[in-house]
Amino acid sequence: MRWARYELKGAVHLGRIDPDRDDRIVEVSGSLFDHPQATGQIHQVADARFLPTVIPPTFYAAGMNYMTHCRNHPELPVPKNADVGYRAINALIAPDEPVIIPKESPGKIQYEGELVVVIGKKARRLSEAEALSCVFGYTIGNDISERTWSKSDRTLWRSKNTDTFKPMGPWIETELDLDALYTTVRLNGVQVSHFRTHDMIFNVPQYIASMTRFVTVYPGDIIWMGTDEPTLDMVAGDHVEIEISGIGKLANPIIGEV
Amino acid sequence: MRWARYELKGAVHLGRIDPDRDDRIVEVSGSLFDHPQATGQIHQVADARFLPTVIPPTFYAAGMNYMTHCRNHPELPVPKNADVGYRAINALIAPDEPVIIPKESPGKIQYEGELVVVIGKKARRLSEAEALSCVFGYTIGNDISERTWSKSDRTLWRSKNTDTFKPMGPWIETELDLDALYTTVRLNGVQVSHFRTHDMIFNVPQYIASMTRFVTVYPGDIIWMGTDEPTLDMVAGDHVEIEISGIGKLANPIIGEV
Repeated sequence: MRWARYELKGAVHLGRIDPDRDDRIVEVSGSLFDHPQATGQIHQVADARFLPTVIPPTFYAAGMNYMTHCRNHPELPVPKNADVGYRAINALIAPDEPVIIPKESPGKIQYEGELVVVIGKKARRLSEAEALSCVFGYTIGNDISERTWSKSDRTLWRSKNTDTFKPMGPWIETELDLDALYTTVRLNGVQVSHFRTHDMIFNVPQYIASMTRFVTVYPGDIIWMGTDEPTLDMVAGDHVEIEISGIGKLANPIIGEV
Repeated sequence: MRWARYELKGAVHLGRIDPDRDDRIVEVSGSLFDHPQATGQIHQVADARFLPTVIPPTFYAAGMNYMTHCRNHPELPVPKNADVGYRAINALIAPDEPVIIPKESPGKIQYEGELVVVIGKKARRLSEAEALSCVFGYTIGNDISERTWSKSDRTLWRSKNTDTFKPMGPWIETELDLDALYTTVRLNGVQVSHFRTHDMIFNVPQYIASMTRFVTVYPGDIIWMGTDEPTLDMVAGDHVEIEISGIGKLANPIIGEV
C-alpha cells in the first residue's frame, strides 16, 4: 500500500494510491497511524502535488551507516554502535521543490540518497526480532549536505539542516522486501550511484533495536538510514533524482539563492 | 503573562495563570501562538499537573554558550559562531516527573540549568535588533547529561536524549528582562550553582540572528540556551531544582531504572 500526503487546490490531504489504478488517490481522514477512514473522495494523481510524506515528531538520521561511505570519510571513526543523529523539520521539502543553495555557502553541495523508515507505533526496548513491528512503511530522502560546513560545524546544523536541504517523498510504501532494494541516484539524468539499499553497517532491525534501548519512538517519527558512496558535487542548475526500487523516485532541482 | 500546559483529571489543557490570583488558571483553547481564546473555565493551580510547556516542532539547543563551561570542557573548542544543536522530544518530561538513569549508564549523570526560548512567530533572516520579535516567551530546562556517553557518542544521542533526560517547565513567562535574570541550581536543597543567565557567549538576540540566517523558526520551536558551571554529578535518590528569577522553579527527582 502507498500512502501520500498531498496538496490539491491549496488544501492538504492524506490518501492512499488506489492499488488497482495508480492514477487515482483515495482520500482518507484521521491519522495514517490510527485507522484512517476513507472520506469517499477520489483525487487524480495528476492534480496532486505530493508533500513531504510526514512531519515527524522526531527526525532521526543515521550518520555513517555504509562501509564505503566510512572509507571515504576517514576523519570519522567507523561506528561500533548505531550512530543516531538528528535532522530538523525546517529543512523538509517536497518532491520537485527546489533545493536552494544559500548565498553564504562556500560549497561543495552533495546529494545523499537514503531509505527513510516511518514509525507507526510507540515502542521502547524492541529486540531485533521485534523491531520491524513498530514500522509503518518506507519512503525516500535526499540528505543534502554542504561539505565545508560539515567540517566547520560540530553539530552539522548548517551542513544538513539549512532550509530546503531535506527533500522527502513521494509516498510511504508499506509492503517492501528490504533485502531486494537497490538505491540509484541520477544527476542530470545520468546514473552516478547504485547500491544495495539494505547493505548497511546497522540494518533497519538492528538500528531500531539499538535506538529503542534508550529512546521511545512514536508514530510519525522518521529514521533516515544513511547513504553509500559516491556522493558527488552539485551546482545550481543541476537536477537530482533518487530512486529506490519498490518505493519510487524523489527528484529535485538545485538552484542558487537569488 | 504566564502560560501553562497542564493535565487535570486525565485531560490536557492550556491556560494562563491569573495575573491577579496566582492560585488560578484561566483555561484557553486554540494555539498559544495564534490568539488563544478563554473558554470561561477556571482551574486551580493546586489541582493541575504542569506538563512540558510546549511540544516543539524543532528542539534546538546551544551546546557551549558560557565561557566557564567552555574552560571546563577543553576537549571542545570555544565556538566562534553560534553552536546550534538538537535535542529530541522523546526525552521531555514535566516538572516533578522523575529523571530515570538507565541500567546501562556507566555515569556520571549531571544537571545543566538552562534558559529556554519559546518561538511564537515564523521567521527567517532576522537581524539582532529584530530577533526578539519572534520570541513568545521563556521557560526553564534541565539538560540532563550522561558524561560517559558524551565522550563515546558523536551525536550525544544517549548522553542527552535518553527518555526522561529533558525536564522542562513549569510555564512560559512572556514578560522578562533578560539582563536581570539569575539561574540558581539546588541539589538536595543546597545551592550548587548560581550565575547570570544572560551572560552568554551568544546571547538570545545574537543566537536567533545567527540561526535564522540559515533556518526558518516556527511557532512552538524551542531553543535551550546552554548552561554555566558547575554541573555536578547526581545519583539515584537526588533531587534537583533549577530556578530562574522572574520565571520560576523546575524541580525533578533522580531515580534509577528498576
